[in-house]
Amino acid sequence: MSAPKKVVLAYSGGLDTSIILKWLQTEYGCEVVTFTADLGQGEELEPAREKAVMLGIKPENIYIEDIREEFVRDFVFPMFRANALYEGLYLLGTSIARPLISKRLVEIAAETGADAVSHGATGKGNDQVRFELAAYALNPDIKVIAPWREWDLSSRTKLLDFAEKNQIPIAKDKRGEAPFSVDANLLHTSSEGKVLEDPAQEAPDYVYQRTVHPEDAPDTPEMVEITFEKGDAVAINGEAMSPAAILTKLNELGGKHGVGRLDLVENRFVGMKSRGIYETPGGTVLLEAHRGIEQITLDSGAGHLKDSIMPRYAELIYNGFWYSPEREMMQALIDKSQEHVTGTVRLKLYKGSVNTVARWSDHSLYSEAHVTFEEDAGAYDQKDAQGFIQLNALRLKLLAARNRRLKG
Amino acid sequence: MSAPKKVVLAYSGGLDTSIILKWLQTEYGCEVVTFTADLGQGEELEPAREKAVMLGIKPENIYIEDIREEFVRDFVFPMFRANALYEGLYLLGTSIARPLISKRLVEIAAETGADAVSHGATGKGNDQVRFELAAYALNPDIKVIAPWREWDLSSRTKLLDFAEKNQIPIAKDKRGEAPFSVDANLLHTSSEGKVLEDPAQEAPDYVYQRTVHPEDAPDTPEMVEITFEKGDAVAINGEAMSPAAILTKLNELGGKHGVGRLDLVENRFVGMKSRGIYETPGGTVLLEAHRGIEQITLDSGAGHLKDSIMPRYAELIYNGFWYSPEREMMQALIDKSQEHVTGTVRLKLYKGSVNTVARWSDHSLYSEAHVTFEEDAGAYDQKDAQGFIQLNALRLKLLAARNRRLKG
Amino acid sequence: MSAPKKVVLAYSGGLDTSIILKWLQTEYGCEVVTFTADLGQGEELEPAREKAVMLGIKPENIYIEDIREEFVRDFVFPMFRANALYEGLYLLGTSIARPLISKRLVEIAAETGADAVSHGATGKGNDQVRFELAAYALNPDIKVIAPWREWDLSSRTKLLDFAEKNQIPIAKDKRGEAPFSVDANLLHTSSEGKVLEDPAQEAPDYVYQRTVHPEDAPDTPEMVEITFEKGDAVAINGEAMSPAAILTKLNELGGKHGVGRLDLVENRFVGMKSRGIYETPGGTVLLEAHRGIEQITLDSGAGHLKDSIMPRYAELIYNGFWYSPEREMMQALIDKSQEHVTGTVRLKLYKGSVNTVARWSDHSLYSEAHVTFEEDAGAYDQKDAQGFIQLNALRLKLLAARNRRLKG
Amino acid sequence: MSAPKKVVLAYSGGLDTSIILKWLQTEYGCEVVTFTADLGQGEELEPAREKAVMLGIKPENIYIEDIREEFVRDFVFPMFRANALYEGLYLLGTSIARPLISKRLVEIAAETGADAVSHGATGKGNDQVRFELAAYALNPDIKVIAPWREWDLSSRTKLLDFAEKNQIPIAKDKRGEAPFSVDANLLHTSSEGKVLEDPAQEAPDYVYQRTVHPEDAPDTPEMVEITFEKGDAVAINGEAMSPAAILTKLNELGGKHGVGRLDLVENRFVGMKSRGIYETPGGTVLLEAHRGIEQITLDSGAGHLKDSIMPRYAELIYNGFWYSPEREMMQALIDKSQEHVTGTVRLKLYKGSVNTVARWSDHSLYSEAHVTFEEDAGAYDQKDAQGFIQLNALRLKLLAARNRRLKG
Repeated sequence: MSAPKKVVLAYSGGLDTSIILKWLQTEYGCEVVTFTADLGQGEELEPAREKAVMLGIKPENIYIEDIREEFVRDFVFPMFRANALYEGLYLLGTSIARPLISKRLVEIAAETGADAVSHGATGKGNDQVRFELAAYALNPDIKVIAPWREWDLSSRTKLLDFAEKNQIPIAKDKRGEAPFSVDANLLHTSSEGKVLEDPAQEAPDYVYQRTVHPEDAPDTPEMVEITFEKGDAVAINGEAMSPAAILTKLNELGGKHGVGRLDLVENRFVGMKSRGIYETPGGTVLLEAHRGIEQITLDSGAGHLKDSIMPRYAELIYNGFWYSPEREMMQALIDKSQEHVTGTVRLKLYKGSVNTVARWSDHSLYSEAHVTFEEDAGAYDQKDAQGFIQLNALRLKLLAARNRRLKG
Repeated sequence: MSAPKKVVLAYSGGLDTSIILKWLQTEYGCEVVTFTADLGQGEELEPAREKAVMLGIKPENIYIEDIREEFVRDFVFPMFRANALYEGLYLLGTSIARPLISKRLVEIAAETGADAVSHGATGKGNDQVRFELAAYALNPDIKVIAPWREWDLSSRTKLLDFAEKNQIPIAKDKRGEAPFSVDANLLHTSSEGKVLEDPAQEAPDYVYQRTVHPEDAPDTPEMVEITFEKGDAVAINGEAMSPAAILTKLNELGGKHGVGRLDLVENRFVGMKSRGIYETPGGTVLLEAHRGIEQITLDSGAGHLKDSIMPRYAELIYNGFWYSPEREMMQALIDKSQEHVTGTVRLKLYKGSVNTVARWSDHSLYSEAHVTFEEDAGAYDQKDAQGFIQLNALRLKLLAARNRRLKG
Repeated sequence: MSAPKKVVLAYSGGLDTSIILKWLQTEYGCEVVTFTADLGQGEELEPAREKAVMLGIKPENIYIEDIREEFVRDFVFPMFRANALYEGLYLLGTSIARPLISKRLVEIAAETGADAVSHGATGKGNDQVRFELAAYALNPDIKVIAPWREWDLSSRTKLLDFAEKNQIPIAKDKRGEAPFSVDANLLHTSSEGKVLEDPAQEAPDYVYQRTVHPEDAPDTPEMVEITFEKGDAVAINGEAMSPAAILTKLNELGGKHGVGRLDLVENRFVGMKSRGIYETPGGTVLLEAHRGIEQITLDSGAGHLKDSIMPRYAELIYNGFWYSPEREMMQALIDKSQEHVTGTVRLKLYKGSVNTVARWSDHSLYSEAHVTFEEDAGAYDQKDAQGFIQLNALRLKLLAARNRRLKG
Repeated sequence: MSAPKKVVLAYSGGLDTSIILKWLQTEYGCEVVTFTADLGQGEELEPAREKAVMLGIKPENIYIEDIREEFVRDFVFPMFRANALYEGLYLLGTSIARPLISKRLVEIAAETGADAVSHGATGKGNDQVRFELAAYALNPDIKVIAPWREWDLSSRTKLLDFAEKNQIPIAKDKRGEAPFSVDANLLHTSSEGKVLEDPAQEAPDYVYQRTVHPEDAPDTPEMVEITFEKGDAVAINGEAMSPAAILTKLNELGGKHGVGRLDLVENRFVGMKSRGIYETPGGTVLLEAHRGIEQITLDSGAGHLKDSIMPRYAELIYNGFWYSPEREMMQALIDKSQEHVTGTVRLKLYKGSVNTVARWSDHSLYSEAHVTFEEDAGAYDQKDAQGFIQLNALRLKLLAARNRRLKG
C-alpha cells in the first residue's frame, strides 16, 4: 500500500484518537480530516472540535455530526425487525454502529478528496473488521489505516511519551490506565478488558454505567405501552416519537428499572473468546415488545422462517458484513415479513426484568373463535385433527413397520 | 378402525379422565388399563388407584409409576443440551412430557396385550398430536382413542350428566368450570383457556401456582452454583444430585425468587394461535446456566451450528416428533457438541431474574493470554488481522468494483 | 360444509373431469362453471368447450384460456431463480402449475358469483393439497369440492357405469385403463402409477413422451447460448423471446437431445413414497444455464445463502405453499440476489446431457487479475493468506490445546 | 515464528516440491523428512524415493505410503453419505484429500521429532488453507512452512535458476511451463490455470485426462449395480470389494463412458472466483447411486434435514474445516441417518450420463400398498387428507381473512 495523502479519521476527541491523529500527521506527513459523530454515546462533541483545532486540523476538515436518527432508523430498527441476538444473548450494540461510522468516513473521504480512512480499533478485536469491511464494501479503492496494528506504541508508557512529546494534553484521570474499556452509543454501553478479563470473577458494581442495580430500582413495577408499525416502534404510551427519541425514552425507562444487563463470554470473529458486560436497557425492552407484537400479528410460517435465519443474520452483523449481499438478502426477507407487524404491547418493568403482559392489534391473527375452550360455532372441526395426525404419522408408521420387519 | 378390545388409558384420577374411562367401557365394551404417572405434577397418585378400583378396573390393570428420573434424564436434559426454545421463548414443558407418557402407554399395551391406547387431550390442541405421533412411531399397529374428537359430550353440562349417570363422583369444586386449564410436571406448569383467552388482558394474579410474584420475592439476591458434566447438570452448590433432584431443587430456588414466568401467544401445530401462561422456574435457571457454561467450553463453530438448528429442533419437539429420525439425527449432532461442556456457573436469582455472573471450567477455551489488553507474550500477532480482513474483504471489493464499473 | 350452489371446475375435457362435472350437477344440483387452461400440455382446448356445452354448461360459464405466458413469467421463472430442486433432483414441474390454476379458479368464482371450486386430484397425492391450500390462501371462505375423496366411484367399472348412465361419451381408448397416469404442462411431463409402481423395475420405453431416447438423439452435439437478465432467460442464440417462447424453444432443443429425464422415488407431502418418471427437457437446460451465469455474476455470500435455503423453498412449493408468507419472504431474498445475474451461457447438448462450456457477462465478478497463475501486478498479496489462515486456525488451535491439556 | 529445526514435507518427487525441499535445506538449514503418498493419483512413487535420496534425504527420513484405503474409507465415503456438493456441482475431490495428507504430516512429525511441516500450495488457493487448518487442529504447536508465500522465486525463470544452481534435475518437458495445473487422486482430476483462465473460452479437449469424450464413448449403454450397506458402497455387480477397489472400479466404468466432467467457476475461500475442469467419474456414479438408494430407504424427515445442512457441510470441507467440531457434529447427524441406507441400485452409463433406473432393498420404506392407483385394502384412508389439508390451511385462511378485513 502506498502512503496515504489525506486521511479521514474517526475522532472522539479523547486521548487515544488524538495520539492517532498526531501519529498520522507525523508518520505519513498527510493531511487529516476528523469525523466526530454523536451516536448517543452521551459525550459533548464540541470539545472534540476544539482539540482538533488545537492539533492543527483546518476548520473545513473538522466534521461533527449528530447521526442518532440515521443510526436508529436505518441500522438499529432494521436489525430489531429480525429479533437479532448473537450467540443467543447479545444485542449487537457495538456491531451495529460500526458500519454507519464507516459509511460517513467513506462519504467524507469522497467529499474532501481523501484517499484513506483511519480508526482507533485494536488488532485483536472485532471492530477493526467491522470498520474495514464496511469501508472496502463502499469504496474498493479506499486505504484503511489501523494504527494499532502498525505502530510500536504498544504500551501505556510509550503512548504517554508520544503524547507528551507531541504536546497532546493528557487529562489527569488518563495518566493511569482505566480499569476497563468502554464503548457506548444510543443502543448500549459495553465494558471489557482489565478487571473484567477473568470470567470466573464477578463484574464489580462500578462497571455499570447506564442501568441502576436491580436492587436499587423502584420497588413498584412500571407499565409501558409501545406501539409498532410495520415492525418498527413508533410510539410510547400513545405518544408518537422519532426513532432516536423512542430509543432514548426506552433507555431512560429500562435504565431506571435495571433492565438490560448482560455478563457474556462471546466468540470474537478473530478467533478468541472475550468477556463483556453489556447494558442495553432500551434495546432489551424493545426486543421483548417486538416479540410480543409479532406473537399476534406474524404467521407461524413467517415467524419460524425468521427464527431459523436469525442466528446467521446476527452473526453477519457481528462479523462486520452489514454491507454484504447476503445481509441485504436476509433483510429483504425480514422486511417482507413485517408488513403487518403493527399494534401495541404492554410491558411490565421491574427490578431488572421486562415482560410482555398484554398485546393487541387490528392486524392480529389471533382468533378466539378458533382457540376457545367454549363450545364454538363451527370455526374449527375437531375431526379434522384425526386426518391431520394420520397423515403426519404415516411416515413414522412406515418406519416403525420397517424396523419391526427387519428385527422379526 | 375396528373397535378396540383392550385400552391403556393415560389416567390422572381426575373427573375428565374418569369420564373417559367410563366412556371407553360403555362405548366400546372394552377392558381398560389405567396408567397414572408421577411426572412431578405435584399430585398424590394413590387416590387415582382408589378411583380406578371404584370404576371397576382390575388391580393388575392399574399401573402407577414414578417416572420423574427417566423424564428428566432422558427427555428434559437432552433437550436442554440444545438450549431449545420454541418461538424464541417457550421452554417446551408440556411438549417434552408427552412422548414419555406415550412410550409407557405403548409398553404397557404390549405387556397387557392391549390393542389400543387413549388420552384425554382435545381435538384443538397440540397434545393429541404429540401423544399419537409418539404412539404410532413406537407401534405402527396401535389404535389410539381420542374421546374428545369422537364423543358428543361437548359441553360441561353433558359431561356432568354423563358422570352422574355413571356414578362418577364429582368433587364440589368441579361442578363449576375451572377458570382456566392447567398442565403440570416437574419442568413446568402451564395455564390456558377461559380467563386467559384474550391476549390483550393481563393474566390474573391467581393464575400463577409455582412461582411467587416477583414483587413478593425476597429483597436479597441469592447466588447458586450449578455444575455440569458433558452438558448435563450434576450438582448444585457443590452437592451432587440425581437429574430429578436437580430439577426439583432448581424449581424450589427459582420459584422462591419469582423466576421463569412467561406470558406467551404461540402458534399451535394445528394452525391457530393460543395464549399460555407458563411457569418454568427450574428450567429457566437451567437454561441460563447451560448457556453460561457453554460460553467458555464450546467452540464458536460448534455453538453457531447448534444455534442455527435449534429452532427446528424445538419445533420438532413442540409438534410431537420426538420419536422421529430427524430429531434423533439432531440429537446426535447436539450430543456430540457436549463432550466438553463441563464446569460450573454461578448465577444470581433476584425478583424474577436469573443471571450468570461467573463461570469456570477445566475444559475452558477462554484464553486470557489471547484476549488481554495487556501487552501479551506473543500468543497473538495483531498483524495477522491485516491479512484476515483483506481476504474477507476481497469479494466485497470485487462487488463494489463491479457496481462502480457498471455505473460509471 | 353446506352444499355448494355454484362450482368452478378445473376441466380438461377428458373423461374423468367430465364425470366430475356431471357428478357435481347430480350430487349437489349446482351450477357448474368450467375452466380449461392451456398451460402448454400440448392438447387442443376447443374440444373441451364442445364437450362442456354438450354436458349442459352455459356458454358464459365456459372459460378457456391460454395462460402459458403468465405460467412461465410469474411461476416458473421466479422458481428457477432459486435453482429449486426437490430432494436434490426434481424440478417441480407439476407443483408449480397448481397454484396458478387455483388462482384462476378463485378469480373466476369471484367473477361468476360461485361459492366453490373443484378439482380432479385424488386423495392420495400432493395435488389435492396444492390446489386447496392455494384456494384457501386466496379466498378463506371458498368451498373446495374434491370428488375423489367424497364419492363412491372408486373403481374403473363404477366410473364407466356412471359415465354411461349419464351419457358421457367414452373414447374407445379410454375403456381400458391407461397403463400409467400423466400430467403435462410447458415445464414437464410426469408419469406415474400402474406399470411404474415397482421402483425395482425399469420404466418401459413407451412411458417417455417428450424426449427422445438418448440413444436415438443426434450423434453430433449442439451448442446453444442462453442470455439472462436479472436471473431470467431473455434470449436464445441471441434472439429475444417471451418467457413461454423461451421455454418452448428449450423444450424442443432439450427434447431432441434426450435431455431432462428423471426416474425418481420421492416423498409425498401426504406421507408415502411414490415413483415418478419426469421429462423436463427445457427446464433441465435452463437450470444448468442459470447456474452457469450465477457462477460468474453472483457473489459467494449470496450464492451460499441461496443454496442453504433452497431445499426449504423447494419443499414449500412441492407441498403446496406457494401462496404463503414464508415462500414470499424467500422469494424476496432470492429476487434480491438476482439483480446482477445478467449475461450469456453457452451449453452443449448431447445424448441426454447438457453442460455449461462457457459464460460471459458485463456483470462478471470473475477477476483474471486476482486468480492468475502468472505473476500479477499486485491485485492480491499472497502474504495476506498467512494472517487469514492464522485467525481462522486460532479457535482450532485453542481446541487442540484444550484437548491436549486434559489428556496429558 | 522461530526457525524450524526439522520439517516434514509433502513431497511428490516433482520439480516444484524438489525445489521446496532444497529451499528448506538452504533457507533454514533444517533437516527435511519427505512424505510421499499414493492417494490414487496414478503416479509411481519409487522415483520420488530416488530423488529424495539424491537430494540428500536420509533413508529413515523418507516416508512413502499407500493410503488409498484410508482415503476412501475415512474421508471419501463419509463425505458421500452426505451427498455433498459444493456450490451445487463440485464433488470436492481436492478438498477431501488435503486433511488426510496433513494428518500424516503431523503424525510423521511426532514420530520423527520434527517441529514443522511444509507443503507446496500457493498463497492464492484453497489448498494452503486446508493443509494448514488441518495441521493446526491436530497439533496446535506445529509450525507450517508455506514456501510459496515466503520466498522470492515468484517466476518460472527464478525457479529454474534456483533448480539449476542447486543441481535439481529438470525433466525436458518441465522447462517450458505446463499449459495448466493438475491435481489428481483416486476421487478426481482437477485442472486449472493458464489456458483455462478465461471462463468464456471452452476448455480444450486435451485438458481431459481421466474420462473419454462422451462422443468417443461406447455407443451402447452399460448397466452397473452398486450395493450399499449403511450408506457406503460395498459391492459392484454383486462382487464385494474394499472401498478403494470400489472407487477404482467406478472410475474405470465412469471414465469409459465419459461420465463426471464438470466445467465450473467456483468461489474460493480466499475470496476470488476461479475456473476449474473436474473429472470425477467414479464419484459421479457413486453420488447418483447413493441418492438412488436413499430414495427408498431414507425417511423424508431425515432426507430433508440432510439436504438442508448439506450446503454448509460441503462448504466446511471446501474451506478446510474437516477437523472442526462443527464438521464432526454434522457427520454424527449424517451417519445417524445412514443406519438403514442398505440395498442395491441399478444405473445406466451412456455417453456422459449416469442415471438410476431401478433400486431395491430389504430396508425399503416404499409401500406399494399405500401408493397404488389400484383399489387398496385400507392401507390409506383418503378421507384423512381432508383433515390434513384443513389444518394445514388454517393459518393461510386466517391470514387471508386478516388481509380482507383490513382492506374492506
